[in-house]
Amino acid sequence: DKELYADDDIAGIVTGLAWTQVGGEILLIESSLSRGKGVLTLSGQLGDVMKESAVTALSYLKAHADELGIDYRVFTCYDLHIHIPAGAVPKDGPSAGITMLTSMTSIYTQRKVKPYIAMTGEVTLRGKVLPVGGIKEKILAANRAGVKEIILCSKNRKDIEEINQSYIKDLSFHYVDTVDQVLDIALLPGQVGKPMKFVLPEEKEQSEVEKVY
Amino acid sequence: DKELYADDDIAGIVTGLAWTQVGGEILLIESSLSRGKGVLTLSGQLGDVMKESAVTALSYLKAHADELGIDYRVFTCYDLHIHIPAGAVPKDGPSAGITMLTSMTSIYTQRKVKPYIAMTGEVTLRGKVLPVGGIKEKILAANRAGVKEIILCSKNRKDIEEINQSYIKDLSFHYVDTVDQVLDIALLPGQVGKPMKFVLPEEKEQSEVEKVY
Amino acid sequence: DKELYADDDIAGIVTGLAWTQVGGEILLIESSLSRGKGVLTLSGQLGDVMKESAVTALSYLKAHADELGIDYRVFTCYDLHIHIPAGAVPKDGPSAGITMLTSMTSIYTQRKVKPYIAMTGEVTLRGKVLPVGGIKEKILAANRAGVKEIILCSKNRKDIEEINQSYIKDLSFHYVDTVDQVLDIALLPGQVGKPMKFVLPEEKEQSEVEKVY
Amino acid sequence: DKELYADDDIAGIVTGLAWTQVGGEILLIESSLSRGKGVLTLSGQLGDVMKESAVTALSYLKAHADELGIDYRVFTCYDLHIHIPAGAVPKDGPSAGITMLTSMTSIYTQRKVKPYIAMTGEVTLRGKVLPVGGIKEKILAANRAGVKEIILCSKNRKDIEEINQSYIKDLSFHYVDTVDQVLDIALLPGQVGKPMKFVLPEEKEQSEVEKVY
Amino acid sequence: DKELYADDDIAGIVTGLAWTQVGGEILLIESSLSRGKGVLTLSGQLGDVMKESAVTALSYLKAHADELGIDYRVFTCYDLHIHIPAGAVPKDGPSAGITMLTSMTSIYTQRKVKPYIAMTGEVTLRGKVLPVGGIKEKILAANRAGVKEIILCSKNRKDIEEINQSYIKDLSFHYVDTVDQVLDIALLPGQVGKPMKFVLPEEKEQSEVEKVY
Amino acid sequence: DKELYADDDIAGIVTGLAWTQVGGEILLIESSLSRGKGVLTLSGQLGDVMKESAVTALSYLKAHADELGIDYRVFTCYDLHIHIPAGAVPKDGPSAGITMLTSMTSIYTQRKVKPYIAMTGEVTLRGKVLPVGGIKEKILAANRAGVKEIILCSKNRKDIEEINQSYIKDLSFHYVDTVDQVLDIALLPGQVGKPMKFVLPEEKEQSEVEKVY
Ligand SMILES: [Ca+2]
Ligand SMILES: [Ca+2]
Ligand SMILES: [Ca+2]
Ligand SMILES: [Ca+2]
Ligand SMILES: [Ca+2]
Ligand SMILES: [Ca+2]
Ligand SMILES: [Ca+2]
Ligand SMILES: [Ca+2]
Ligand SMILES: [Ca+2]
Ligand SMILES: [Ca+2]
Ligand SMILES: [Ca+2]
Ligand SMILES: [Ca+2]
Repeated sequence: DKELYADDDIAGIVTGLAWTQVGGEILLIESSLSRGKGVLTLSGQLGDVMKESAVTALSYLKAHADELGIDYRVFTCYDLHIHIPAGAVPKDGPSAGITMLTSMTSIYTQRKVKPYIAMTGEVTLRGKVLPVGGIKEKILAANRAGVKEIILCSKNRKDIEEINQSYIKDLSFHYVDTVDQVLDIALLPGQVGKPMKFVLPEEKEQSEVEKVY
Repeated sequence: DKELYADDDIAGIVTGLAWTQVGGEILLIESSLSRGKGVLTLSGQLGDVMKESAVTALSYLKAHADELGIDYRVFTCYDLHIHIPAGAVPKDGPSAGITMLTSMTSIYTQRKVKPYIAMTGEVTLRGKVLPVGGIKEKILAANRAGVKEIILCSKNRKDIEEINQSYIKDLSFHYVDTVDQVLDIALLPGQVGKPMKFVLPEEKEQSEVEKVY
Repeated sequence: DKELYADDDIAGIVTGLAWTQVGGEILLIESSLSRGKGVLTLSGQLGDVMKESAVTALSYLKAHADELGIDYRVFTCYDLHIHIPAGAVPKDGPSAGITMLTSMTSIYTQRKVKPYIAMTGEVTLRGKVLPVGGIKEKILAANRAGVKEIILCSKNRKDIEEINQSYIKDLSFHYVDTVDQVLDIALLPGQVGKPMKFVLPEEKEQSEVEKVY
Repeated sequence: DKELYADDDIAGIVTGLAWTQVGGEILLIESSLSRGKGVLTLSGQLGDVMKESAVTALSYLKAHADELGIDYRVFTCYDLHIHIPAGAVPKDGPSAGITMLTSMTSIYTQRKVKPYIAMTGEVTLRGKVLPVGGIKEKILAANRAGVKEIILCSKNRKDIEEINQSYIKDLSFHYVDTVDQVLDIALLPGQVGKPMKFVLPEEKEQSEVEKVY
Repeated sequence: DKELYADDDIAGIVTGLAWTQVGGEILLIESSLSRGKGVLTLSGQLGDVMKESAVTALSYLKAHADELGIDYRVFTCYDLHIHIPAGAVPKDGPSAGITMLTSMTSIYTQRKVKPYIAMTGEVTLRGKVLPVGGIKEKILAANRAGVKEIILCSKNRKDIEEINQSYIKDLSFHYVDTVDQVLDIALLPGQVGKPMKFVLPEEKEQSEVEKVY
Repeated sequence: DKELYADDDIAGIVTGLAWTQVGGEILLIESSLSRGKGVLTLSGQLGDVMKESAVTALSYLKAHADELGIDYRVFTCYDLHIHIPAGAVPKDGPSAGITMLTSMTSIYTQRKVKPYIAMTGEVTLRGKVLPVGGIKEKILAANRAGVKEIILCSKNRKDIEEINQSYIKDLSFHYVDTVDQVLDIALLPGQVGKPMKFVLPEEKEQSEVEKVY
């Protein structure tokens, strides 16, 4: 009943892979920005570990704003909301880390998300991707949903190799170690059709700031 | 004992459909705005999932303010209160999502709500409408209360088709996939008789802001 | 042992009717204002539902400040405290809604409360009065305490008709559907003898605000 | 082992009467002010009902600042701390209400507290004094500690009359109905020897404020 | 394994005496200040009663800043952190009150703490020292650790007299009733070798403040 | 499966040693800074004691900013996030104290962390290093992971001496008593290749501040 989202013209929608009692599932991470004060809202009955993953991903983004082409003022002049439907289903664990990070990067840069791609992996504050569990069930769910490419931690390669290859012949896999690799694969270089224009206060004049160290 | 609200001259009152232990019920979502700082208050003994639905609906509205014709400054200069009577009855679940969104849109735009209409469906942050449960009981309750039109997720069409059609011959159904469709159906183009005049601070002069991306 | 409060020269004191394990009781709602920042304090061991009733009543007042003759700046320049003695007795439920609203309206407008009047009813955000339970016990308690007039939801009329009329021959009843009717009955047109003078900051000049919609 | 505090040269120290499992006891309410932002701190393991009593007493004081001769700016430019030793003993209930109010009034006005006086009674927001329980035990404890005068609610007079009069021949009783009477009895007209000088920001000029109603 | 801290050249380190399941122990109270906004941080797994003691001690200090020679602006321009190692051992009770107060006074005045001194006693808001329990065990622990002088409430003198005097022949005792006496004994008149220089905003000009009462 | 992090060109990544039910383990402390308001975020399912260790370490850093060469304005103009993967594994206890402090010092000074070094020890607010447990298991884990140098409290020397020396012949040990010694050993004098440039507001002019004491 889960459907794949494969419209690359809305920023911030990325497909993750979850492992639940009833087997593997795809889940969509949704992000939105609105003018505000930098408040982060998380919804969809997320557990503590998943909330910490979101906060860690956001800190990574803030600390690497320059290299990702994000104006740092956006973080304090816009509020970020991340929601994971279905709203009544509790979700937890660190494995949506890279999916949330990709969603956030897309919404802040307005870059397109590659269609038919899904991913699963824990993110750390220094941008490392860690392996996660339930790979087989997640992959089979992705396949059923029509996903074509999957991003995984390189330490999860062995879990893929244990799957009967005939089940996954339509899938291509990307094995990564860093967030930087994830974003290179999952985000297209161009922006969505009608990118948001961020309205920001003028930067302080140089005479009022100084740089140190 | 539940009565239908069908006065289209007050903004922000929308009929939802709930499914409780004693069967289906209609419930009224009430919204009000007052000068303040953008605080959101939710009351009526709402559970976590329902509160998250409200927050998600509000984020959708903020992110789509321009296309809905809402001045973004209203979100920070007015407080929004959403209340669902009866005040002592606990309520939960995501199915009031589109009803709360319609109520909020009506109060912020001061547009009239179509009379004799009710709705049920989960809302997501990107404006998608998801199917919900308890359809049969909800529809019968709506019928008893005098509702004439009902908005549902297109994925709930099969639940309607399973109902004995003689019970629902006086109802017309709208099947939707997006919030945009919900609002086109449920809100009339004109404003209520005495629309609120929002008092807002002057916008900053162009020289003090810049637009990026 | 409960005594009726019937001094119409202090604003904000209104008699409510409660239904407890030991039968019906009157309770006094007390409101006070002091210079501050718009903080709402509730005391008297109020439960969640009762607190939500207070917040709903206050939102109603804020949204209808103009028509009630309340300067909106009072809501942000004064703190409101509502207390319901006895301080150690837990109280809950929505039935003090209209009593709290009447108390708040009296304190913000400094209008006198009609003496020897009591009331019970739930309030909604759009100003509707909903019926409540325990009517017989509440009415008998009011009668014993010396109350002369009672305001009730029109849907509670049937509960009054079931009472042996000889018990209530000294009481007159007002059946209402809206908050507006409650206030017309319970508040006298004039102010208390020494009305508070609200000290407010000057309004911003017209050039600094604009009205939209 | 409890000792009476009877030094009238420190503002804010007032003797209350408590009723505990081990019988009646005296307790000292201590208040202190320090430059700050109007924060209220309560300590001494106070329960919910007792904290609400303190907040109610403070609201009464704020709403009646003018008639008590307190400059309203003190409430926002000074922090108030109320502590009840012994710090590890849990305390609760409404009966310290008038004692806390007297302590606060003394510290804000710097008026002396009458020596050898103790009191017990609930306070309401409109300044009414309500009766409390455990009177016999409290009175005997006060007597043992050397208290000479006691302030009680007039509704507690019957509890005093039931005590064997030979036990209380050294005590004089004040029966009151309002806070105003309590303060007239418990506070001396003059200030303590070295009254605090409150440092306050200049009042806004008249041109910047207006009075309404 | 606990060691005595007897270096008088760091401000804010004071030896307290605790009574635990395994007998008496010494504990070190550490305070530090850093530029901030007046935030108080407490760490070392302190229980509610101990936290209230710290807050009470700080309020005493703020209310008596002038007589202790502390510039009141330090309280709002610096953050105070109090930590009691070992970090994983839960601690509670009021008996560290005077130790925390001495530590705070030392850090705010930069005065030296007398070496080889320890103390135990509850502090009240008006600066009174109250007796505490476990005296025998605490004293023996202090003796083993090399403490030479001990400050106690005068009401704890009887507990000392019950100890076999040969055990405590190397200890001298100070019996006190007020905080003022504690500080006179425990703090040396001079400052530590390299006292902190507090950086403070200029005081408002006299024309902008007024003193009342 | 745990890997050693030995890249000295990213600031803020430091190897700690943990002791878990399944034996000793290494863990990486990650710190990052981003423009903000001085908010501290901790993630990785840290328990209360561990969170207090982090806060204590940060207070030490703030109080010793000058001697460590950190501009105090960084603490209020940047947000600090500390994360300890793996995100779903609960962690607690004080033994990561010196590791977190080293990580923070590295990120705020942008100094390199010595490669192949690990450490374990509690930190106190005055900069003392306290001994911790589980030394044998931690050391063996460090050895397996390729660590070459280990920093420990001097009071843990006896725990090392009890280990069969053939197991640890490739490790060199540093026994310390203070944080200052930890930082001298663990941080290299130079900065990482591309040090962050901190953007700070201009300092207030001398005429607007004064130094006291
Ligand atoms: Ca959890
Ligand atoms: Ca790249
Ligand atoms: Ca829940
Ligand atoms: Ca449309
Ligand atoms: Ca509840
Ligand atoms: Ca009217
Ligand atoms: Ca309670
Ligand atoms: Ca008087
Ligand atoms: Ca406790
Ligand atoms: Ca002295
Ligand atoms: Ca804990
Ligand atoms: Ca050094």
